[in-house]
Amino acid sequence: MSAPLKVLVDGGRSDASWPLDRGLHFGDGLFETMLVRNGRARFESLHRERLAAGCERLRIEAQPDAIWHEVESVAAATGSALLKLIVTRGLAMERGYTPTGREKAQRILLVYAAAADDPLEMQAEAVRLRSTLGENPLLAGIKHCNRLEQVLGRAELKQLPAFEGLMASSSGRLISGTMSNVFLVLEGKLVTPRVDRCGIAGITRRVVMREARAMSWAATEMDIPFEATARCSEAFITNSRLGVRPLTSLDGRALVIGENARELQRRISGQDE
Amino acid sequence: MSAPLKVLVDGGRSDASWPLDRGLHFGDGLFETMLVRNGRARFESLHRERLAAGCERLRIEAQPDAIWHEVESVAAATGSALLKLIVTRGLAMERGYTPTGREKAQRILLVYAAAADDPLEMQAEAVRLRSTLGENPLLAGIKHCNRLEQVLGRAELKQLPAFEGLMASSSGRLISGTMSNVFLVLEGKLVTPRVDRCGIAGITRRVVMREARAMSWAATEMDIPFEATARCSEAFITNSRLGVRPLTSLDGRALVIGENARELQRRISGQDE
Repeated sequence: MSAPLKVLVDGGRSDASWPLDRGLHFGDGLFETMLVRNGRARFESLHRERLAAGCERLRIEAQPDAIWHEVESVAAATGSALLKLIVTRGLAMERGYTPTGREKAQRILLVYAAAADDPLEMQAEAVRLRSTLGENPLLAGIKHCNRLEQVLGRAELKQLPAFEGLMASSSGRLISGTMSNVFLVLEGKLVTPRVDRCGIAGITRRVVMREARAMSWAATEMDIPFEATARCSEAFITNSRLGVRPLTSLDGRALVIGENARELQRRISGQDE
Repeated sequence: MSAPLKVLVDGGRSDASWPLDRGLHFGDGLFETMLVRNGRARFESLHRERLAAGCERLRIEAQPDAIWHEVESVAAATGSALLKLIVTRGLAMERGYTPTGREKAQRILLVYAAAADDPLEMQAEAVRLRSTLGENPLLAGIKHCNRLEQVLGRAELKQLPAFEGLMASSSGRLISGTMSNVFLVLEGKLVTPRVDRCGIAGITRRVVMREARAMSWAATEMDIPFEATARCSEAFITNSRLGVRPLTSLDGRALVIGENARELQRRISGQDE
């Protein structure tokens, strides 16, 4: 079985190839969200590394040189922006789930206006969601395009509402926010959930781990019960757009913003790398 | 934040809207695979019902009348075919996971040549895979477009190889094949895995439940440990393309094809509905 005889898009016959993209059919792809500042994609080398790890895990044969050359030239031309890069496995050569290994990866780069937020002044409130995250070690950590769980999490959050919603795995562990990683101060120690059964290994999360270590405030990756959020003294969320954003409340309980967290926020906010 | 300033597809500037489809970004959509025979999509009313349930679960506002009118006219014009219908939430109105609720669902209908297999003569071999399925009650049962687990399962299967690979949930229960539902005869009873924590509520699975009941061979939906496959006396897999396909071996162990299974196969193969 190979190409379809006919393709209809919203009722009209289409000869375009995009309706065959496996990204569309199965979420068979990866993405990166990057903040561009001063003409450069922040932490580009880390994004590049994660994308490469994702491609290897899913056996997507992307062309990293072309991808990153494009990111660099768009970043240079734009100065300040938010980039979303999607790399899919490419067009379905045959019907069905099986990759043939002959697909040609497709890349899509979307350039958005950067928000004008000053991250150092920003803080956020978070709540715990009922929407959960399924566990799959083969998919954990990478930033693939199967994101319905996040979509459902955001839809739940919208009803509550709060800035961010924290999500548990199906086995009841705290994993992340809907669009961020999360760090807690528990019994005086900085901890963050492991992302080896679900969740995304965030770039800012990684930078936080590194910078906190440099501040002698090393963060430990561990299994954290979802209920532990009721016991933390501080918490912050991280992503490429927000940087480090302290939580002033969690499920309505007030949290302090510690000096270490503010220091971490300043250190990371100042870096372009 | 709203529309992107610029979109590049494989290096070229694009003004097309499809790069914004949430199906592509997040697998934020649903699909149905239907066999067309004698100018009709088999079990259309059941596919219609499942798609509606999926739309309700994901809060996708599809236009069922337009969709099914199109399916019917394509089926009538084609006579014999395999249809893949994809319904996505539509274009991303804003950046990020949150649906705005103002998206306009997009439908894609792909028409493939039908295979010439005679299902009554076909049988299959299956093996158990190491690739697993994450559990998420909010996504279980519906045929959504987050299918990387199946893609990974098929990739694993290709290395082995066998016709179908059976997959367990992260909690060690038998759930389904990579592209099929599964029924076992265990201690003389017909059983099939529950699909309330993961897996897809297959249309042929549902028809099998109904027809088996009519034959006084009622199938029970239950939690089945993955290891139970070593104890079954018979097994068959089902999907819309294959119908009921008995397994002649499972992990290399020979299985018989029982009279009931053959009878079920004949009954369902003869129906167009």
